[in-house]
Amino acid sequence: MQAPGDVRIEERADPEIVDPTDAIVRVSAACVCGSDLWPYRGIENLEWPAPMGHEYAGIVEAVGGEVESIKPGQFVVGSFWASDNTCEVCRTGYQSACVNRVPMGALGAQAEFLRVPLADGTLVATPDVPPDDLIPSLLSASDVLGTGWFGSVAAEAGPGKTVAVVGDGAVGLHAVLAAKQLGAERIIAMSRHETRQRLARDYGATDIVEERGEDGVAKVKELTNGLGAHSVVEAVGTQESMIQAIRSTRPGGHVGFVGVGHEVAVPGMELFWSLVHLHGGPAPVRRFLPELIDLIWRREIEPGKVFDLELPLHQAAKGYEAMDQRRAIKVLLRP
Amino acid sequence: MQAPGDVRIEERADPEIVDPTDAIVRVSAACVCGSDLWPYRGIENLEWPAPMGHEYAGIVEAVGGEVESIKPGQFVVGSFWASDNTCEVCRTGYQSACVNRVPMGALGAQAEFLRVPLADGTLVATPDVPPDDLIPSLLSASDVLGTGWFGSVAAEAGPGKTVAVVGDGAVGLHAVLAAKQLGAERIIAMSRHETRQRLARDYGATDIVEERGEDGVAKVKELTNGLGAHSVVEAVGTQESMIQAIRSTRPGGHVGFVGVGHEVAVPGMELFWSLVHLHGGPAPVRRFLPELIDLIWRREIEPGKVFDLELPLHQAAKGYEAMDQRRAIKVLLRP
Repeated sequence: MQAPGDVRIEERADPEIVDPTDAIVRVSAACVCGSDLWPYRGIENLEWPAPMGHEYAGIVEAVGGEVESIKPGQFVVGSFWASDNTCEVCRTGYQSACVNRVPMGALGAQAEFLRVPLADGTLVATPDVPPDDLIPSLLSASDVLGTGWFGSVAAEAGPGKTVAVVGDGAVGLHAVLAAKQLGAERIIAMSRHETRQRLARDYGATDIVEERGEDGVAKVKELTNGLGAHSVVEAVGTQESMIQAIRSTRPGGHVGFVGVGHEVAVPGMELFWSLVHLHGGPAPVRRFLPELIDLIWRREIEPGKVFDLELPLHQAAKGYEAMDQRRAIKVLLRP
Repeated sequence: MQAPGDVRIEERADPEIVDPTDAIVRVSAACVCGSDLWPYRGIENLEWPAPMGHEYAGIVEAVGGEVESIKPGQFVVGSFWASDNTCEVCRTGYQSACVNRVPMGALGAQAEFLRVPLADGTLVATPDVPPDDLIPSLLSASDVLGTGWFGSVAAEAGPGKTVAVVGDGAVGLHAVLAAKQLGAERIIAMSRHETRQRLARDYGATDIVEERGEDGVAKVKELTNGLGAHSVVEAVGTQESMIQAIRSTRPGGHVGFVGVGHEVAVPGMELFWSLVHLHGGPAPVRRFLPELIDLIWRREIEPGKVFDLELPLHQAAKGYEAMDQRRAIKVLLRP
């Protein structure tokens, strides 16, 4: 990305092993993230020009001298944070706050080759090289599925629970899928777009609420005996969606937020009186990767359905445009 | 309270049974709460003149026709919220958000007699009429102990955990006591007042940090391998203390906040990147009352120590003054 709104494909030098814990991955598929739209729309500033992309799946080309578990030829998926997976924070399941973490976005996964730091901790290999039709789903585990999953886990979705999901982007839709897998009894997807509603239902939504803001809150309360949902996932990142999520949650319930809330400020008294639990942030995707890969490999879930536009990498700019204009939910790029 | 800073004792009509679920309690002891200082200092507006006080322990004088478990002659303690203890929210332990809750503050516990709505749900009787020296501790369970306890529970204090407590008021000190009872390994009390530090140590604090704000955060990190505490209790209610609490917590850790944050706004990105859990609000004291009364009755804890000034009710104004000027941690009033 050269500047907001200006995405170009340029020839860059192939990445090389820098640290002995690195791996080089030949990217089989990458994609455009909702969070890539923040700089695209000029809301987040980057150091221009910026390599883009932090979601990736592909074949290991080479590994550094200290890499032990990951081997060339393996098909791997990694999180959008590289993490050692051994530090005290990683061991509690918060690999996105690893004391040695490296943001993959800075390395640029929307490319043919990608350097992955801390390869042993970051990458998870699939049982075999996957058939082509599994690649979109495996790629989704890298962020969008893992992030939606974390949203539902943070909201403590589970058996007997009513879960509401604010946001019908790819992350919100995967929060629906996660809530279903986690055993939620009732799943309310908040969406006013027919194609997204359809996918939400396909992923396990039992109810669709089209209303937003206070009307959306009222509708969720109407569906939950006046109390609000037990679990609410916030997957947008605006002040309105955060407030909507908090108000849709019953006292003692859980809000899991994964929207990147650049302009959010949670009013203290609102939070105080709500008596909800609030947890979220950059998803520790690495925690969930083995389980997610297993579910995909056994074809129990098909998160790859979220990609409704597939483009060759050299048309990446078109992909950004389609997502920015909400013509596509999620764009897959093939190098 | 006639207006900010103006506390007077006036003769009012004795309260009577209004609803058949009411009880009338002859107040043995009441007290001044940190939150009573909000209107006293003009930060919170009340409908003047306002009866004051929401912490109480005493003898049941009379009960309404539908009261079944509470009987005249019993010594009882109740929460600062009256609650039915049977609704769906109460049953999950959030009695302070009971669908039928009544704020006791509006009824005025700093008085000789008090009407308690929803008596069966709200009041917990002690095994017998207590000896006089147990009354301060039993009274503390009504709010200040129960609120500190909730802070530590919300922060998930427990075995193996390092707990930091921001705030050395009566609530913060009881969060220290609670953390100790909940089995915390290390308890960091943040206080720069010698008498409060002494009480904190007496209640179980293993470390005292005098620094505040960023210096306080740095000190807690220094004591916790650079990561921050597992559990942090916020018991002040200012923007500075909330930010200090969030920054003192490790990723994946828990902030339990019980300070009434009138002017707090939690920045979205701060919360996002912190990866902490945030939970708090008006403490569901009723959840903890049976356990707290039992601990006090068996003299395993002595939360009554927090009262460092005892006055006859008619000198209530002096009590407000002493707390406002921080000459007293907590003032007990005897009608």
